[in-house]
Amino acid sequence: MTIVLGDNRYGKAETRVVRVTRDGDVHRIKDVNVSVLLSGDMEDVHLTGDNAAVLPTDTQKNTVFAFAKRYGVGEIENFGLRLARHFVDAQPTIAHARVEIEEYAWNRITERHSFVRDGTEVRTALVHSDGTGGRESVVSGLKDLVVLNSTGSEFHGFIEDEFTTLRPTDDRILATAVTASWRHRGVGTDWGDSYRAVREHLLRGFAETHSLSLQQTLYEMGRRVLRERREVCEVRMSMPNRHHFLVDLQPFGMNNDNEVYFAADRPYGLIEGTVLDDDAPDAPAAWS
Amino acid sequence: MTIVLGDNRYGKAETRVVRVTRDGDVHRIKDVNVSVLLSGDMEDVHLTGDNAAVLPTDTQKNTVFAFAKRYGVGEIENFGLRLARHFVDAQPTIAHARVEIEEYAWNRITERHSFVRDGTEVRTALVHSDGTGGRESVVSGLKDLVVLNSTGSEFHGFIEDEFTTLRPTDDRILATAVTASWRHRGVGTDWGDSYRAVREHLLRGFAETHSLSLQQTLYEMGRRVLRERREVCEVRMSMPNRHHFLVDLQPFGMNNDNEVYFAADRPYGLIEGTVLDDDAPDAPAAWS
Amino acid sequence: MTIVLGDNRYGKAETRVVRVTRDGDVHRIKDVNVSVLLSGDMEDVHLTGDNAAVLPTDTQKNTVFAFAKRYGVGEIENFGLRLARHFVDAQPTIAHARVEIEEYAWNRITERHSFVRDGTEVRTALVHSDGTGGRESVVSGLKDLVVLNSTGSEFHGFIEDEFTTLRPTDDRILATAVTASWRHRGVGTDWGDSYRAVREHLLRGFAETHSLSLQQTLYEMGRRVLRERREVCEVRMSMPNRHHFLVDLQPFGMNNDNEVYFAADRPYGLIEGTVLDDDAPDAPAAWS
Amino acid sequence: MTIVLGDNRYGKAETRVVRVTRDGDVHRIKDVNVSVLLSGDMEDVHLTGDNAAVLPTDTQKNTVFAFAKRYGVGEIENFGLRLARHFVDAQPTIAHARVEIEEYAWNRITERHSFVRDGTEVRTALVHSDGTGGRESVVSGLKDLVVLNSTGSEFHGFIEDEFTTLRPTDDRILATAVTASWRHRGVGTDWGDSYRAVREHLLRGFAETHSLSLQQTLYEMGRRVLRERREVCEVRMSMPNRHHFLVDLQPFGMNNDNEVYFAADRPYGLIEGTVLDDDAPDAPAAWS
Repeated sequence: MTIVLGDNRYGKAETRVVRVTRDGDVHRIKDVNVSVLLSGDMEDVHLTGDNAAVLPTDTQKNTVFAFAKRYGVGEIENFGLRLARHFVDAQPTIAHARVEIEEYAWNRITERHSFVRDGTEVRTALVHSDGTGGRESVVSGLKDLVVLNSTGSEFHGFIEDEFTTLRPTDDRILATAVTASWRHRGVGTDWGDSYRAVREHLLRGFAETHSLSLQQTLYEMGRRVLRERREVCEVRMSMPNRHHFLVDLQPFGMNNDNEVYFAADRPYGLIEGTVLDDDAPDAPAAWS
Repeated sequence: MTIVLGDNRYGKAETRVVRVTRDGDVHRIKDVNVSVLLSGDMEDVHLTGDNAAVLPTDTQKNTVFAFAKRYGVGEIENFGLRLARHFVDAQPTIAHARVEIEEYAWNRITERHSFVRDGTEVRTALVHSDGTGGRESVVSGLKDLVVLNSTGSEFHGFIEDEFTTLRPTDDRILATAVTASWRHRGVGTDWGDSYRAVREHLLRGFAETHSLSLQQTLYEMGRRVLRERREVCEVRMSMPNRHHFLVDLQPFGMNNDNEVYFAADRPYGLIEGTVLDDDAPDAPAAWS
Repeated sequence: MTIVLGDNRYGKAETRVVRVTRDGDVHRIKDVNVSVLLSGDMEDVHLTGDNAAVLPTDTQKNTVFAFAKRYGVGEIENFGLRLARHFVDAQPTIAHARVEIEEYAWNRITERHSFVRDGTEVRTALVHSDGTGGRESVVSGLKDLVVLNSTGSEFHGFIEDEFTTLRPTDDRILATAVTASWRHRGVGTDWGDSYRAVREHLLRGFAETHSLSLQQTLYEMGRRVLRERREVCEVRMSMPNRHHFLVDLQPFGMNNDNEVYFAADRPYGLIEGTVLDDDAPDAPAAWS
Repeated sequence: MTIVLGDNRYGKAETRVVRVTRDGDVHRIKDVNVSVLLSGDMEDVHLTGDNAAVLPTDTQKNTVFAFAKRYGVGEIENFGLRLARHFVDAQPTIAHARVEIEEYAWNRITERHSFVRDGTEVRTALVHSDGTGGRESVVSGLKDLVVLNSTGSEFHGFIEDEFTTLRPTDDRILATAVTASWRHRGVGTDWGDSYRAVREHLLRGFAETHSLSLQQTLYEMGRRVLRERREVCEVRMSMPNRHHFLVDLQPFGMNNDNEVYFAADRPYGLIEGTVLDDDAPDAPAAWS
């Protein structure tokens, strides 16, 4: 047996930046959370504690702030690419950079400089880069998009075994908190347009699919994105089945005609799936 | 010394109900979290474990579901009053009921029966009742209304002592997550109208106040509500000062002209205050 | 109607301090979270934004750090008293200080300077002071003390109404996460000794009470503390009933003889109660 | 372009089971959280909603409860293997099962049947199985093991660039919340013994390494496990650097001789690394 160092990476997580852009009295804000992970010639720092190859995570944080000033934040995919390329290009010991950004949405209260947080969902970007001109991938996404269909969902025809007690149903609530990520074919997309369109296709896919299973809904959501948005080659989704159980009101002499539901916390079903163009280039590193 | 039982209450917390109302193909949903706390003749259950005066919390939960079926949920203030009165009226051993309800907002994806969660903020109601015809109070509210002014906020002229390092500023970001509760003069308000109006006054009060301190902003928000909404006699607010610190970019040869901020987690300032009509009837129990 | 300012307070919340004390190679650490709330002549700051009476929350934070250096942290009740008195004594505009401290426990890995976090529970102190020589109160406490009796708990003889479905039981799991606070008669207690003893009485009270209701257990826990610890004059407890439901295994041809339980999240019962010496001096401000 | 279904899996997450074992008056409890994910012939359910190949997640939950009754829980690695094999063996459409279990530790209050939750950390197991006799892997682990060295940590000799402001230090606090997972060579280990030994080696590795970087500490922790525990062939760790910043007390005329630290929340450094036997069999699926 020889003990060796395997996969490793390090960086500064969750640098919280708010960038204000002033156009006279009218302000715009970008509110993001930036996490950097770098890898490269890190054998020495692990084996002997020699930090000669290490760009400190404190410096990574400073770089995020300085770039927010110098270039603005703009679309988070571009901000991620800019940061990732910088770390690899500037440091010979860094071979690969992964930048993950969350963006929080704000609406205006007035036209000038007052804002209110919008929505529970978060826009995400995950960028990998081996440096300018090297291999790169961009995965856009969202999380905590909470959706519910109050009808139009069935579940029956499943396997029954000795531990089955669930009854088939032809009308249930279907609710989930969508986490979705979609991989782009290239790095030159109009990210803002693409994001808004994909989000809308996911919502429409959820709402307009008469569902026989949450898997079917998931697949349909991904299929719509791929069909309508040629810049996207793969969609991954994780969708907890937020169970809404019909409350038994018979003991109180009442019929519950799909009106009163108990929203349960745990356990919950969990459905994870991928929909892709079978010609999509392989890019496993893009996803983690 | 004689050991005695003091204040006490018990109930079922966080019953999560989703109520669907069907108008043909068009559905409406109410999504609420109901917490009941009851008090009354509870000496025996504490001293000897005799449960003869105890309405089990399980039954309270069932009542919430059954009432959601029988009456619908409607405005949460009314649903709270209905539940609170029931527990006191129906049980001789229960003298006082407190019902707290959170409501989560949903927007439509389609006009029919598909919905997406809206916003981070939560509408709240806190109802106290000694039973039909007895003393009652209704406190409406909201929480997690996250707002930010990117300018129009100053802070100077404060006390300086041996531990002061803060510099005065005439331009800072002011951001907070508003928790507000407002007490109604009576129990017959149009709750939905009132809620939407108060929320708007709070937002406008935050946005339109040129702020010399977060206390001034808080007071102005409460003052607007009282001035504009006669049904409200008292407003309480708790507003954490979500500090946004200007990042020092001088070491990188950059000026930070109020453009790049670090959004800090802890510690945070905390401002709590009450604005009221000095003729408001006393109702300390309404608030806890 | 005249709109006026009501109760208000402000301060710096959650200043996280770790204080290291070195005795040669052997270190001790105190890990605390300090929240300060001050009140006094705050009319002007609310009405006009004049900060002349305001000790900034930033300065409060600095004071916490400086006092941790100058005096050490020691018992959190003493640290709270020292801070509270300072703010009132040093500032004519501050009439009242409230200091709340959480302490996180650590065990040693080695005898020297390596530590591992101990337990889920948190020790707490809540101090109120009108300044040196003025009215003061000290409330010690703990939270998130999670306990479970796997038998020795019954529940029957309760009210039955039209919404009752719960069956009586003479053997159930009783589990809760105890939040307890106890008020001291004076401010000169040996806080460390007192804390360890009270915690042990609470644990023993929970374990050794054959329970006919969670209220009975709560009362017995408080009674033991008061009976055994003369320095304490009042105990308040909040105990969620963490329901463990017996799983119905009959459909699988199995008997569930109180062996397999489902630990539910929501809804949960909530029991809150106070046990006190009826000669205890009144001190409502001590608790909030 | 052809749109196809890619990787997918589904199951019931977070089934919370408490299993009581009675030895007369002396009880033992196991408190676990079980998450199942299955994969196999799931093309139809995604493309058409045909559930003929689907074992409902509700049935998976029932199976967890029934197995807890029939076999007890025992070591979580064994319980995971038992469940995983069952799903694959019993269902022709299920080719692969992944079972993840968290276990929460309890201490005794009395020798009989009263317990108090112990520690913040959680023991984990991640089992993959293609069925009895098929490929299998067992990964044991822990999370939220919070540790701190109050000295014995340096950081210097790192890269300096235009964005560097960090000063080198030869004495700092090193603190982290360890998440560690270790892969076993086989499936027949004495899991309980192994767990306790690995945990102790991780703690000792953290405490006894004079650290020049957190990476060095991570590597040393993994190396000790591999060197001392032959049943383990690979260790993966994720260690956030919980920064403790020395507070600047100079403005108050005080020296801070490594005594008073501010414990920061975000951003934080994040160090992830793998230490393995270079002869370890490949098992990428074991980790996700």
